[in-house]
Amino acid sequence: MTLNENGYEIEQWGRFEYRCTGPQEGNPFTDVRLVGRFRYDHRIVDAEGFYDGDGQYCIRFMPDTLGLWTFETVSNCEALHGHTGTLRCQEPLPGNRGPVRVHDTHHFAYADGTLYRPYGTTCYAWTHQGEQLEAMTLASLRQSPFNKIRMCVFPKHYDYNLNEPQRYPFAGSLEAGWDFTRFDPSYWSHLESRLQDLLDMGIEADLILFHPYDRWGFSKMTAETDELYLQYAIARLASFRNIWWSLANEYDLMHEKKMQDWDKFFKLIQAKDPYQHLRSIHNWHHPEIHYRSNAHWYDHGKPWVTHASIQHHDLNFIPEWRKLYGKPIVIDECRYEGDLNHGWGNLTAEAMTECFWRGMAFGGYVTHGETYVHPENIIWWSHGGTLHGQSAARIQFLQALMEEGPQLGQIAINFQWDTAAGGSDQEHYWVYFGQSRPAFRKLNLPEGIRFEMDLIDTWEMAVTRMQGLYEGVCRIELPAKPYMALRIRIASSNLQRGENV
Amino acid sequence: MTLNENGYEIEQWGRFEYRCTGPQEGNPFTDVRLVGRFRYDHRIVDAEGFYDGDGQYCIRFMPDTLGLWTFETVSNCEALHGHTGTLRCQEPLPGNRGPVRVHDTHHFAYADGTLYRPYGTTCYAWTHQGEQLEAMTLASLRQSPFNKIRMCVFPKHYDYNLNEPQRYPFAGSLEAGWDFTRFDPSYWSHLESRLQDLLDMGIEADLILFHPYDRWGFSKMTAETDELYLQYAIARLASFRNIWWSLANEYDLMHEKKMQDWDKFFKLIQAKDPYQHLRSIHNWHHPEIHYRSNAHWYDHGKPWVTHASIQHHDLNFIPEWRKLYGKPIVIDECRYEGDLNHGWGNLTAEAMTECFWRGMAFGGYVTHGETYVHPENIIWWSHGGTLHGQSAARIQFLQALMEEGPQLGQIAINFQWDTAAGGSDQEHYWVYFGQSRPAFRKLNLPEGIRFEMDLIDTWEMAVTRMQGLYEGVCRIELPAKPYMALRIRIASSNLQRGENV
Repeated sequence: MTLNENGYEIEQWGRFEYRCTGPQEGNPFTDVRLVGRFRYDHRIVDAEGFYDGDGQYCIRFMPDTLGLWTFETVSNCEALHGHTGTLRCQEPLPGNRGPVRVHDTHHFAYADGTLYRPYGTTCYAWTHQGEQLEAMTLASLRQSPFNKIRMCVFPKHYDYNLNEPQRYPFAGSLEAGWDFTRFDPSYWSHLESRLQDLLDMGIEADLILFHPYDRWGFSKMTAETDELYLQYAIARLASFRNIWWSLANEYDLMHEKKMQDWDKFFKLIQAKDPYQHLRSIHNWHHPEIHYRSNAHWYDHGKPWVTHASIQHHDLNFIPEWRKLYGKPIVIDECRYEGDLNHGWGNLTAEAMTECFWRGMAFGGYVTHGETYVHPENIIWWSHGGTLHGQSAARIQFLQALMEEGPQLGQIAINFQWDTAAGGSDQEHYWVYFGQSRPAFRKLNLPEGIRFEMDLIDTWEMAVTRMQGLYEGVCRIELPAKPYMALRIRIASSNLQRGENV
Repeated sequence: MTLNENGYEIEQWGRFEYRCTGPQEGNPFTDVRLVGRFRYDHRIVDAEGFYDGDGQYCIRFMPDTLGLWTFETVSNCEALHGHTGTLRCQEPLPGNRGPVRVHDTHHFAYADGTLYRPYGTTCYAWTHQGEQLEAMTLASLRQSPFNKIRMCVFPKHYDYNLNEPQRYPFAGSLEAGWDFTRFDPSYWSHLESRLQDLLDMGIEADLILFHPYDRWGFSKMTAETDELYLQYAIARLASFRNIWWSLANEYDLMHEKKMQDWDKFFKLIQAKDPYQHLRSIHNWHHPEIHYRSNAHWYDHGKPWVTHASIQHHDLNFIPEWRKLYGKPIVIDECRYEGDLNHGWGNLTAEAMTECFWRGMAFGGYVTHGETYVHPENIIWWSHGGTLHGQSAARIQFLQALMEEGPQLGQIAINFQWDTAAGGSDQEHYWVYFGQSRPAFRKLNLPEGIRFEMDLIDTWEMAVTRMQGLYEGVCRIELPAKPYMALRIRIASSNLQRGENV
């Protein structure tokens, strides 16, 4: 953002910030209303401002359209009312592709149209760990395949994460109690600098607004406080183009909240967020044994839910969920690679990798986490820090392969029930065998189209081109080893043949 | 069986056979009725006889009570009517513990009260493969841990098993057609010699009466023929103490049969089998993905079903099925160890072993099968022959451990959802971790009782006694490797302490 004689200049999907000075007396968080009214041609976009402490008021805005915008401030406080300016929205800088949107029903794309495939990870409380560890987390992320991170606004109280955070979102203290009508701007500006770090690295922040792991009372605030908090968070954070709103982690462990509360929060965010960032909610409950009561989940079919954010360890449900919700399916928790005492945190690296392949072959998306016992209890899933496992490298390998091909959808061919398979009919197929290890298989490829085939060892990270071209019913020799996949792509010779006709 | 001046002598649960000569004209299979009426004190047991060809008629009987029995024959044919004799039932010989019965709701025991835990395997068509291969199968079984085998009466037509059998149960031929009113006694006597071979080795024969893998028409006979066949099979085979009646394999692929037909068959067997051998039926259908329609299964809750014989790959349902049916749960198919092209036949040995541990820890029973690609298409699951895999040795290891302890039931302690656990409250617990691999775990053992604990590496087949005794909430260090189990048993020192009080 720059300011010159022509007004402000800002890249498309960049964050414009207008600051002004106003009253400090009373409670500026609740007494003062401030809105930035941005106009582009016939459009008006209202972006709510917020109090940033020390008499500072701020309006943030993320323009989505190139060209000239004007703005004016609207406030119940005279000193803040009626400010005007112009804002020239310019071509985005390299690496800025805008916020992520739903694309093609079950997938995602950046606002500029580039496909986006989430390879998420989980560091719930990483922004509450102090500068040194936070810097280490950022360095680890930079080396990783991950382009989405699940992280909490509120500090976390749970096994292995019992330390006190350095800052709190509200004014007050644990001892003296919280003033839930006042925020602590230093807390929020710290969070924002971390969101900006992620943004700079091209990582989406799947920001968890509520969670049950709490000893401070943030999970049991009043309805009024919840709303005040959400409005403040939106005013401060919605202009970060990498924000996704995750209403809760394991919402159904927050026994004070009812389904109607979550509906209300969704609707509030839908109404207040000028940019309509992605919105979902993450469950705890999934009947491990009998699988029969998905009905108890928050209904991802509701119109304000943009995609399903699911905790479930059985990726084979993805085709069913795709059909049921007609939205992208993101398995944001399917157990973590590690050796923790907890059942959800002791997957082998093979099993974590299998989740990614199985989930993505079915046309869904899967989120990673790592939970290795650590002498100082620094565990990636909560604290960030360093990755110790073996699945991240395999996810990177998968990512490189996925980026070469189209989005995967459901296909007409049945590659047998022991595979996870998806693709694009008559063009591109992924067949993942997981722990099944056939010595050969008969495939029913389409007649009249020749395909080339790669054998992929998903664990050894090797791609072997199979000799010849394949068409119709064909027998494929396989190495009788677990964790194999086939990539089957239409051969370029089809096109040549077509030209000859 | 011996005959001396006092009449016949036979061991308890042995097979008494009374032969007599009668008419050969007409159709002796349908024209002649012959029953052996056996009396012991106030009891009368009718055992139907059968025509064995060449004018030979036969009555077989398995006495269940020691002491003196008398018998007489009842027939619509004068030459066969009114024969009498005495039968002294004596102590069973070593290794003869009688037929297997349901015991303690979810388990099995021999008639003499000895617990019986099925470690089944599957060789569907092994008795149709000729002397050489059948002898090889018997030799393999002798070396194996298996004490139950699933096998078909009818020959099998299916992938890898397209050869013509040497004998057929009915008179006639494939070319000339079958006379479904006449049986081929040589076929049945061959089957019987194989059943006797199994009996001599202490192996239960889970005999499959119908199946859909057919090119001869045996799966599509008329209702009248089906009944005639069942009656003939019962008359010939029920006196083998090692018989279990499996009404069908994958009954729901036999589209000509309706649920009422299966009910009728069950009721017929229940009425005709003088010994009430175990009865069940094996399904094909189980919705692989959504798991929701067990309702379509044959209802194992019906009174004539003695135990559930289930095909399903997810052993985690066992606790639910135990509760639902209140009967023993036998997972008679959960995929096979091998590398076949088919999805059901390419489990790793690790996965097959896991099925056994998971299933048995939950208080169920699991059946093995092996399906490795073979140069001559001799595959254990269908033909028998030689075992090539690695799970059988692990099943033997499991068997040795299981035989030391009590039957496993559901327990009050929650060892976390990622384990399969069962036992006997406050005395004996099995906790199996499968692919989960925690580095430690906190257990909530009962207070006031000291337990000894063994760490079991189920794959490496090693048992390591853990130092000390354990009581109440305790932390157990684990090796962070897959396929571990804990065996937790009440320490003998508790009893000493009890005595001191």
